[in-house]
Amino acid sequence: MSTTTTQPLVYFFGQGRADGSAAMKDVLGGKGAALAEMTSIGVSVPPGFTIASTLCQTYLQTRAFPGGLQSQVQACLHRVEAATRRQFGAETNPLLVSVRSGAALSMPGMMETILNLGLNDATVVALERESGNPRFAWDSYRRFVQMYAAVVYDVPKERFEALLDERKKARNVARDIDLPVDDLAALVSAFKSLIEQETGHGFPEDPMEQLWGAIAAVFESWNTKRAIDYRKLHDIPHSLGTAVNVMAMVFGNTGEDSGTGVAFTRDPSTGENVLYGEFLLNAQGEDVVSGTRDPQPIAALAETMPKAHAELEQMAKRLERHFRDVQDMEFTVERGTLYMLQTRRAQRTGHAAVRIACDMVGDGSISEEEAVARVPPNDLDQLLHPTIDPSAELDLLTTGLPASPGAASGTVVFDADDAERIGRAGDAVILVRRETSPEDFHGMVVAKAILTARGGMTSHAAVVARGMGKPCVAGAQGLVVDEAAKMFSVNGRSIREGEWITIDGTRGHVHAGQAALIAPELSDNFLRLMTWADRLRHLKVRVNADTPADAHRGREFGAEGIGLCRTEHMFFEGTRLQAMREMIVAQDSAGRQAALQKLLPMQRSDFEGIFRAMEGCPVTIRLLDPPLHEFLPTEQEEITKLAHELGKPVDEMKRIIDGLSEVNPMLGLRGCRLAIIYPEIPAMQTRAIFEAACTVASRKGQVLPEIMIPLTASVAELRQQARIVRDTAETVFQEREITVPYLLGTMIELPRAALTADEIAQESDFFSFGTNDLTQTTWGLSRDDCGRFLPHYLDHHLIEADPFQVLDQVGVGRLVRMGVELGRKARPDLKIGICGEHGGEPSSVVFCDQLGLNYVSCSPFRVPIARLAAAQAALSARGTMDRTKATL
Amino acid sequence: MSTTTTQPLVYFFGQGRADGSAAMKDVLGGKGAALAEMTSIGVSVPPGFTIASTLCQTYLQTRAFPGGLQSQVQACLHRVEAATRRQFGAETNPLLVSVRSGAALSMPGMMETILNLGLNDATVVALERESGNPRFAWDSYRRFVQMYAAVVYDVPKERFEALLDERKKARNVARDIDLPVDDLAALVSAFKSLIEQETGHGFPEDPMEQLWGAIAAVFESWNTKRAIDYRKLHDIPHSLGTAVNVMAMVFGNTGEDSGTGVAFTRDPSTGENVLYGEFLLNAQGEDVVSGTRDPQPIAALAETMPKAHAELEQMAKRLERHFRDVQDMEFTVERGTLYMLQTRRAQRTGHAAVRIACDMVGDGSISEEEAVARVPPNDLDQLLHPTIDPSAELDLLTTGLPASPGAASGTVVFDADDAERIGRAGDAVILVRRETSPEDFHGMVVAKAILTARGGMTSHAAVVARGMGKPCVAGAQGLVVDEAAKMFSVNGRSIREGEWITIDGTRGHVHAGQAALIAPELSDNFLRLMTWADRLRHLKVRVNADTPADAHRGREFGAEGIGLCRTEHMFFEGTRLQAMREMIVAQDSAGRQAALQKLLPMQRSDFEGIFRAMEGCPVTIRLLDPPLHEFLPTEQEEITKLAHELGKPVDEMKRIIDGLSEVNPMLGLRGCRLAIIYPEIPAMQTRAIFEAACTVASRKGQVLPEIMIPLTASVAELRQQARIVRDTAETVFQEREITVPYLLGTMIELPRAALTADEIAQESDFFSFGTNDLTQTTWGLSRDDCGRFLPHYLDHHLIEADPFQVLDQVGVGRLVRMGVELGRKARPDLKIGICGEHGGEPSSVVFCDQLGLNYVSCSPFRVPIARLAAAQAALSARGTMDRTKATL
Repeated sequence: MSTTTTQPLVYFFGQGRADGSAAMKDVLGGKGAALAEMTSIGVSVPPGFTIASTLCQTYLQTRAFPGGLQSQVQACLHRVEAATRRQFGAETNPLLVSVRSGAALSMPGMMETILNLGLNDATVVALERESGNPRFAWDSYRRFVQMYAAVVYDVPKERFEALLDERKKARNVARDIDLPVDDLAALVSAFKSLIEQETGHGFPEDPMEQLWGAIAAVFESWNTKRAIDYRKLHDIPHSLGTAVNVMAMVFGNTGEDSGTGVAFTRDPSTGENVLYGEFLLNAQGEDVVSGTRDPQPIAALAETMPKAHAELEQMAKRLERHFRDVQDMEFTVERGTLYMLQTRRAQRTGHAAVRIACDMVGDGSISEEEAVARVPPNDLDQLLHPTIDPSAELDLLTTGLPASPGAASGTVVFDADDAERIGRAGDAVILVRRETSPEDFHGMVVAKAILTARGGMTSHAAVVARGMGKPCVAGAQGLVVDEAAKMFSVNGRSIREGEWITIDGTRGHVHAGQAALIAPELSDNFLRLMTWADRLRHLKVRVNADTPADAHRGREFGAEGIGLCRTEHMFFEGTRLQAMREMIVAQDSAGRQAALQKLLPMQRSDFEGIFRAMEGCPVTIRLLDPPLHEFLPTEQEEITKLAHELGKPVDEMKRIIDGLSEVNPMLGLRGCRLAIIYPEIPAMQTRAIFEAACTVASRKGQVLPEIMIPLTASVAELRQQARIVRDTAETVFQEREITVPYLLGTMIELPRAALTADEIAQESDFFSFGTNDLTQTTWGLSRDDCGRFLPHYLDHHLIEADPFQVLDQVGVGRLVRMGVELGRKARPDLKIGICGEHGGEPSSVVFCDQLGLNYVSCSPFRVPIARLAAAQAALSARGTMDRTKATL
Repeated sequence: MSTTTTQPLVYFFGQGRADGSAAMKDVLGGKGAALAEMTSIGVSVPPGFTIASTLCQTYLQTRAFPGGLQSQVQACLHRVEAATRRQFGAETNPLLVSVRSGAALSMPGMMETILNLGLNDATVVALERESGNPRFAWDSYRRFVQMYAAVVYDVPKERFEALLDERKKARNVARDIDLPVDDLAALVSAFKSLIEQETGHGFPEDPMEQLWGAIAAVFESWNTKRAIDYRKLHDIPHSLGTAVNVMAMVFGNTGEDSGTGVAFTRDPSTGENVLYGEFLLNAQGEDVVSGTRDPQPIAALAETMPKAHAELEQMAKRLERHFRDVQDMEFTVERGTLYMLQTRRAQRTGHAAVRIACDMVGDGSISEEEAVARVPPNDLDQLLHPTIDPSAELDLLTTGLPASPGAASGTVVFDADDAERIGRAGDAVILVRRETSPEDFHGMVVAKAILTARGGMTSHAAVVARGMGKPCVAGAQGLVVDEAAKMFSVNGRSIREGEWITIDGTRGHVHAGQAALIAPELSDNFLRLMTWADRLRHLKVRVNADTPADAHRGREFGAEGIGLCRTEHMFFEGTRLQAMREMIVAQDSAGRQAALQKLLPMQRSDFEGIFRAMEGCPVTIRLLDPPLHEFLPTEQEEITKLAHELGKPVDEMKRIIDGLSEVNPMLGLRGCRLAIIYPEIPAMQTRAIFEAACTVASRKGQVLPEIMIPLTASVAELRQQARIVRDTAETVFQEREITVPYLLGTMIELPRAALTADEIAQESDFFSFGTNDLTQTTWGLSRDDCGRFLPHYLDHHLIEADPFQVLDQVGVGRLVRMGVELGRKARPDLKIGICGEHGGEPSSVVFCDQLGLNYVSCSPFRVPIARLAAAQAALSARGTMDRTKATL
């Protein structure tokens, strides 16, 4: 089968002219496009040509090259010969080439490369002669035969390594290069025999046959199992195909005036504007990669080859200016002459990303918009939390859920009292528990980090840790905690009280020992970037904060209000917990009211503190949400204690606690259902809110309370709750002789609420999408239980991302969209936000912006991430986000 | 304020002519419309007039009568005077009237009636003279004053009763009527003094003043608390208002040639075509209602007043023919002359409804369509299950969830072994457990009914009982079961082993003692009605059946296939349970496969039996759905036993069982998630299905298996499962050298499945909506836990109906509609059914028909209900359902 087409199949580059350009990445692949562009702008690149990636699929389906390819390759090869004044296969001045793969999307290490192609028994002699370096010539030949056999004929590499090792052993030398030339020549023969033996045919002496074999092999490498798996994992379409780059060889291994290396135009760790990288003298590219020799820092090049170094610095500047972003380059110096072999956009740390973006705005390279567009929002996490030093050697014990970000080291303790005792003494401790409960709170306050064996991203440990900004890994796999023996075991290892571990809550890793940490830093660059972001975004960003301390921290990070103040966490401390329990255990309304009366002043002062911290900003307060049994003890000892404290028989206490247990608490008596059954609770809570608001307002503070009803499923529930809130507000306003404006709205966290948002909007001033619970119910997926199968789903690509981390736009997103549309149809001025943890996840923030939400709300440390993501969302909406992306 | 309108405000009826008609129920109310219609068709009705219900709201808002009303009332009153040759307020031949309320929708006993209006100190003398019956005259006056005071002036009735009782005590008589005339006259005076004393003004002697007071009072009675509550409860709009019927009095209490009664044109219990009812000689209507005297059966009237009886029979026939439905009539005989005072459509039992509908088709009164339209589908339940005799005296112990319909009596037992021992001996037993588990199965088989203290409509007890067609009440409120002591206590009472109770699973009632039951009966009439229904309906009706026995029963009831065969119930018996547990406890794939190998032949023979029972019909088989921990024991003793049986240490067994426990099992590792983690399970199940199908097919049986994947949330899951099913099918077809056509589809039981139905349809031949689980997730409502608040919601009208019984069309229905539309858009030939229990609930069946579903599926005993509901749905769709409704 043959294909005829007017599009060129092969694209030449060399001598300052190229058929392709950076814009043609789809056809030329990333590498081919970069080579073409570099050539065009006068960077010194060895000449060569790129076979279009569009031919890959045709080849793989037919196992034949399309008509016209052969003549185009031939023509390009002649141009390379002309440019290099060498001839392919000639016995004088033979042209040698490299053959490399290169797809439009980077697949590092997944496909094949062959160097020194064109060598055979005749050309090797020419190379030996011309270089005056027999060892170089024969070592190149030896490498080529070995590489070719592995790539084209699939002969296992170990077979060649074994022959090589045998030879080195016989000569008692350690390095390949130390073998005598004769041995290298003998090895070439031995390799060829091995090929004959393995494949039944000889090694092709004809360079053209070598070339076509290599081109075919590169195409074939697109469909190796590892390449397919990699594409599946990274969502790269299988139809893309790889291009094939054929380029004249330059040699970094011809002597001490040659070398090869990689360089970054700026330091990718710190962002500092200095040439950064490393090189190896007298080496080919694969020596750098294989790590058999220690490379030197790039600065050393200034001494050994000052001219090449100066030239490299100049190239780096030129490439960075041209591509308008930091570049990651490969280069070779052949007998003092610099050749650039590759350039691409450099990966960088969060610190570097921010600094580079700001520096480039400073020197006029890019605009503020571009700077905002270029920093991946999640990278800011590194600036806000301690992180493990990337160079630290780690001893991974296990992984779990990344329940609260940041890293911390400490000695392990197994109960809250020990944590308090040792922690208060000034030692760093990490609290390890099977799971935490309200009784552990005082220990969590002093611990540097929390580790639990059970529970999910919304477990007590996770929620409290995030609130405190402490690292937490929850539901760690295989972790068996023996709290009595003060030890835990995991994967066959045991860690006892007092031993050090390091928690990486951002990744969900648990390491043995004390790893080096990098402290967070709110640099001027960070603040500058945030200012630019704030100017661009439309979405407001609020913070989820339950305490005045959280509220302050949120404001520091730029929050414009509280989007979710969970009142239940206020009940988990000391006296409050006791009063709460008294309320729950009371079996009639009078008893409940008496207990609630004790809670009222505490709630009021909580709200006063929060209103003061947030003066002038809206504060959304969610009324009591969790099932009551969460406030009660589960351990026999605690139950007995509580019974004594409340003057009830232990049996009765047990019966009350048992009576509150539920088969599926997530779907049980919680949220507004509780408030409907026990109207005393919302009455007390709203009274506390409005009394606090009146107090602050009467001292000229601006308070903007927004009362939020949780777990609404129907407008009837909301209507009933609204009556309690409005009546209480009226009463308090009359008592205090002052009126405070307020809003009344609801969480949209059940599918039915989104489905009937038109009805619910009639009773709501605002909606706040609780996408955590909405994800649980839409998927029918308990966050506390999915640890047993979600990892398998992710591994097997049955799900793209953890839907609790990245909003599932296809499913849950459809419901959110419906809720927004129905809600605004019924009430065009409806204020809409999101307060699930997706509110701080960049792709979800962009989605919220697209849906026209008014704000997102997230935990304090994610506020800057949300601000940046919101700015990028605004750029996307204008269509300028893509334009600001670097070309390569 | 006054209103002018061209519509008449008052509608006269009398002497064979009426301004109104039966069609004017909205204006005249039910009673007024019936009186007008009866008058028009020549039925003997005392003359009178109806004041339009449309005036009620105007009056209530303004407390004034609109302009023109007075003159229209006056004009009508003159016509009544002319018709009766009496005069209102005259001292000779005075006209007395009754004033009655009557809204468009019946609100029995909710509003007011005043009889004998027009009596005063002058007219009573005329009545005494003309009737020649002073006692009658003064007793009528006495009653009128009392009634008027109560209705118009709100004087408590007890005050009058006290005076009356005092007088009777003084005379030592038991009945009012036995008081001497003088005492009655004295009572009138005493009553009037009481009125003066209570209200500050006298009793109105002017009949016109009496009349306007009464009219106003009837309007006012629309807004009494009990009337408002009643309307709230029955969804009657408050804006409707009541009409006022003013009618010339006729007297059933003038002597032994008079009387009053109620009659049905047919027996409302059995449907037998005989005049049915009862009457009281020498009495007014309220005497019948008050129950102070025992009425006689209507047949007795034939002897005492043959002429009136013959006339009544004739009227009954005429009314039934005219209104084309069985009538419930009120009548009075005054000195031998029959007057009809009211007629309306008669309430009837299920048995009667079916028989009447068939009889009326038989005698040509109505069409087959009308017969189908008239029987409320749920009434069929009475024909299919034993029911408690409506006349039985009951001793209600408690209520719970109506988990499985039907009634049964038996002596209580508290464990399955006792149930088996005593039950096998031939005694009727009722198994009472805190909750049931698979170990109780053998006891459930012999028990007549099941009662549990915990668990919901989908608990083990409920599901198994429904499958067996046994009555079950689950989650009974306040029930404390002491299994060790063999007793239960509830609401302060204790019932011990051996004592009788009666379970009403249709209503969720538990009664002490042995109540009289009515046996079910599949009459010829029933079968005839079903035949007509089947001719009309478009929706197919399938049965949810897990065993060959269920499948047979379903076919007997007219099922056209199995819509849901739950494979897990097959695992709950003896050896199977053991093998299942072995599979679960196995910690690797090999162990699981070995255990599954034991299950394979059992599953295969199950499926063979089911395919044979359902030959020629489609059989939808759902692969394993519940979480694995449901198969494991929870009691320490059972765990120890299992550990010994499987040769594992008890500790390890406990650890395995603990490891499988979940916080929210409803949202955990179940459905296709299980099958994805343990692909051996679906592989075994599909092999069993296809081997069975091949066996039956190879013997020329027609098998139509439809494999159904449970709990699909995303197309990726379905695709993965489809691969296992299709591969297994191919393998089996090759082994057996025969191919069986089959379908592959999925449950739509998670919101996300409905939301992404377009994607999911690409991999599905059919959808089956699992509306039980869909309701749980859409509402975020656990069926097992909502018992603590759903009753409160229902009582306080925060929800219209239990969404697990009646499909929530507004919320869940919106998702179902979306699933249907998206699914059919992607795949127009998609077969769609519903297999939640809503599939047998009439209003939900109509909704399914509207959405264009292909079939509904329900438990065997609900199949006839679904067939009838489906027929009614088809009639609704044609717009003929309303037309076939009786006018009154």
